[in-house]
Amino acid sequence: MRGVDQIDFLELHPGAAPAKGVTAWLVDALRAAIADGRLAAGARLPATRALAADLGLSRGVVVEAYQRLTDEGLLSGRTGAGTVVTGLAAQPREPSRPREASAMRLPLPPSAGVDLDLSPGVPDLSAFPRAAWLRAERAVLATATNADLGYGDPRGNPRLRTELAGWLARTRGVQTGADDLIVVNGVAQALALLAQTARSQGVTEVAVEDPGSRGTRDELAHWGLQPVPVPVDGEGLRVDRLAATGLDSVLLTPAHQFPTGVVLSPARRRALLAWPGLIIEDDYDAEHRYDRAPVAALQASAPDRVAYTGSVSKSLAPGMRLGWLIAPRARHADLVTAKHASDLGNPALPQLIFAHLLAGGDYERHLRTVRRRQVRRRDALLHGLREHVPQARVEGVAAGLHLLITLPGPADDTELARRLEQDGVRVHPLSWHRQLDGPPGLVLGYAALPPDRLLEAARRMGRTLGAQRAR
Amino acid sequence: MRGVDQIDFLELHPGAAPAKGVTAWLVDALRAAIADGRLAAGARLPATRALAADLGLSRGVVVEAYQRLTDEGLLSGRTGAGTVVTGLAAQPREPSRPREASAMRLPLPPSAGVDLDLSPGVPDLSAFPRAAWLRAERAVLATATNADLGYGDPRGNPRLRTELAGWLARTRGVQTGADDLIVVNGVAQALALLAQTARSQGVTEVAVEDPGSRGTRDELAHWGLQPVPVPVDGEGLRVDRLAATGLDSVLLTPAHQFPTGVVLSPARRRALLAWPGLIIEDDYDAEHRYDRAPVAALQASAPDRVAYTGSVSKSLAPGMRLGWLIAPRARHADLVTAKHASDLGNPALPQLIFAHLLAGGDYERHLRTVRRRQVRRRDALLHGLREHVPQARVEGVAAGLHLLITLPGPADDTELARRLEQDGVRVHPLSWHRQLDGPPGLVLGYAALPPDRLLEAARRMGRTLGAQRAR
Repeated sequence: MRGVDQIDFLELHPGAAPAKGVTAWLVDALRAAIADGRLAAGARLPATRALAADLGLSRGVVVEAYQRLTDEGLLSGRTGAGTVVTGLAAQPREPSRPREASAMRLPLPPSAGVDLDLSPGVPDLSAFPRAAWLRAERAVLATATNADLGYGDPRGNPRLRTELAGWLARTRGVQTGADDLIVVNGVAQALALLAQTARSQGVTEVAVEDPGSRGTRDELAHWGLQPVPVPVDGEGLRVDRLAATGLDSVLLTPAHQFPTGVVLSPARRRALLAWPGLIIEDDYDAEHRYDRAPVAALQASAPDRVAYTGSVSKSLAPGMRLGWLIAPRARHADLVTAKHASDLGNPALPQLIFAHLLAGGDYERHLRTVRRRQVRRRDALLHGLREHVPQARVEGVAAGLHLLITLPGPADDTELARRLEQDGVRVHPLSWHRQLDGPPGLVLGYAALPPDRLLEAARRMGRTLGAQRAR
Repeated sequence: MRGVDQIDFLELHPGAAPAKGVTAWLVDALRAAIADGRLAAGARLPATRALAADLGLSRGVVVEAYQRLTDEGLLSGRTGAGTVVTGLAAQPREPSRPREASAMRLPLPPSAGVDLDLSPGVPDLSAFPRAAWLRAERAVLATATNADLGYGDPRGNPRLRTELAGWLARTRGVQTGADDLIVVNGVAQALALLAQTARSQGVTEVAVEDPGSRGTRDELAHWGLQPVPVPVDGEGLRVDRLAATGLDSVLLTPAHQFPTGVVLSPARRRALLAWPGLIIEDDYDAEHRYDRAPVAALQASAPDRVAYTGSVSKSLAPGMRLGWLIAPRARHADLVTAKHASDLGNPALPQLIFAHLLAGGDYERHLRTVRRRQVRRRDALLHGLREHVPQARVEGVAAGLHLLITLPGPADDTELARRLEQDGVRVHPLSWHRQLDGPPGLVLGYAALPPDRLLEAARRMGRTLGAQRAR
């Protein structure tokens, strides 16, 4: 057995250790020396008294450090034989490698070169009601019971479910009681739970709108549900084409179709409600109707065939990750089981805070404020487009946080978006959100930028799209 | 076409409507009448002017209500023909049925008849640092950027990942950088993500400790991973028996085995680290070691073979749903994809608040406080057990929020727990957490109750267990 008489080569400098952490520092230093082979298997460590004297530490620190490494299995000590490095070398973590370029993952992260981000789906984050949120948090922390902070009902806190059931009944006509509602981490989780339960029943395909949300399509595919495109026209989803697929479930955005902005027409609603399958209603931005009250949710007419989902992502902030799912009763129990198996339930405090904002009217006031602001922004963008991009046809302006422009003649909208991004403007090419062929277009989110910035975006778009036409 | 000349039978009383919501009230009332057949398909509604006069409403309200129901497809109107109920009847939601008794779902919800809940795994919720949390929230809301509230990195907020990586390195020896860490909704989600990615690679079984957490076992089974029991003895997991299974992954709780409380011995650690499979390390309560610093995480010795997970559920509150997952680099990208597909990422504000509590030392102070308190509670329970249940053998007292008692001779611990619950005391029978045969026992959580209540629980246990012996 080789002895380590000189520990100098380990370059231990306890002066560098934080005042109260010398034991942890010594443990880490010795573990690292074992990991990289400076202390090889079989090496005998100095006696605790000797090492303590060398390092100017109390002997207790060294004893404790040796003990911890013995507990970890890296050292072993027998009376008389001293403390020896075992055959087990701690492994250093592999050095970080550059990540492989992954498939596009929506929503896109912020980009350094972009100063005008018109990605659809992002609300005005500067409008987040920070003061009201903090007031609500104070009230919640003053009144929440201990049980509110414990393991709760996987469906979510009953106070929030009660407030939400009332709110959705009043504003969207949704037929639900608090017991039917599942609080989820945003619409993304609602779709994950629906996809998981569908897969467990052998379903492998679901009809989706085309064009329709690329992020949603990718998510369904991740969970093993193939998204089958059904065309959207000026009245919304082509229900005749849906029926022709023979599928038994469809996901759609009837109040304000993403990305075209079409509201599902009364005739199509009737046809869809007469269709016998499961309807998944993504009511992602219905709060943002500008000309009149939004059409009621489909769920209001067929609660036993519609799974209804929405969130605060477009009304407060996507970072809240707070949404709801109301499913036909026959599917409810399986979805609660899936939610429980996914994360046991949503975080408690944000639920209580949102319940407080709903009950006190703060949420409704906030929506009125942002709705007014968004109308001004939409109008600014429309004005800019008329002036700088007169050739574009604009659609979907009555509601929501985005509009769609389509362009005459052939054009590669992905290439257009790429060129706009070089000019500091981020938009989504319509083709990202298509599986079927169709005219080119650009999806423009306008909620997150003030009017003058939207005018500037339109100006740059005119420059790029004009140059495109001139070629 | 039948006309509805008298609308009286609908019993519309607009006085009952909220002052600003008469339109919504009228829409709901008419929709309900269509749903239950009082307004049949083909029925013609009164002219808007007539109904408005009857109800004492402005005509605009009735026009708007008819329009909304037309948008919903429930009415149709043609010039000259009046407004007619379409063939589509809105369906009322099925009446709620009593839920079927579901399989036991852990953690159990609070029970009405129980005044002494010793369920393991619940910390002292009265110790939740409400004031510090609110201070941190105020600081966060004053400084968070708008982008912090938007769609973020699916791994979590970079500030929290940086703070956590440092904290886990200091306190648990974990080898990680901020980029390797995924913020998750508690250990439950970490296990869900690990199970999903394992299943997608064709894995169908995973070794687990026996006894071991019933909730964890059920969750793995939900995700299609069969939990294969490997016995635990006084040194922890029997690694020889693990090797004999031929499986290539194991989930265990090395720092404080659940539910036995055993710390994995140095020899077993060495054997486990020499075993070639994937080690899933559930470090669920390592902060709560009472006699000395806890043994470092297994991950510290083998970062490329250990997936490490933990949470604040046992240190702050389970309702936070805030945890972390650090996986071997080769598995990292798949787990991030699974997290993104599950919910896009954790809620933003709690992450920023927890980062603030870590950075400012509040979290560490909180842990010191609760650790001292828990020692007193553990000691009170031990004292009570010695006095009232002297026949019990007590295990796992050096750490954690619970201890285990085993009982001499044959006994049905499920029946014992049932009788204790009748006496107002909830504990877990050890057999809930077993797949293999073994001696009966009871798992007692002591963190959530003050010393005098724990003494009372021991007194009642003595009564029930004594009566059991006397029979």
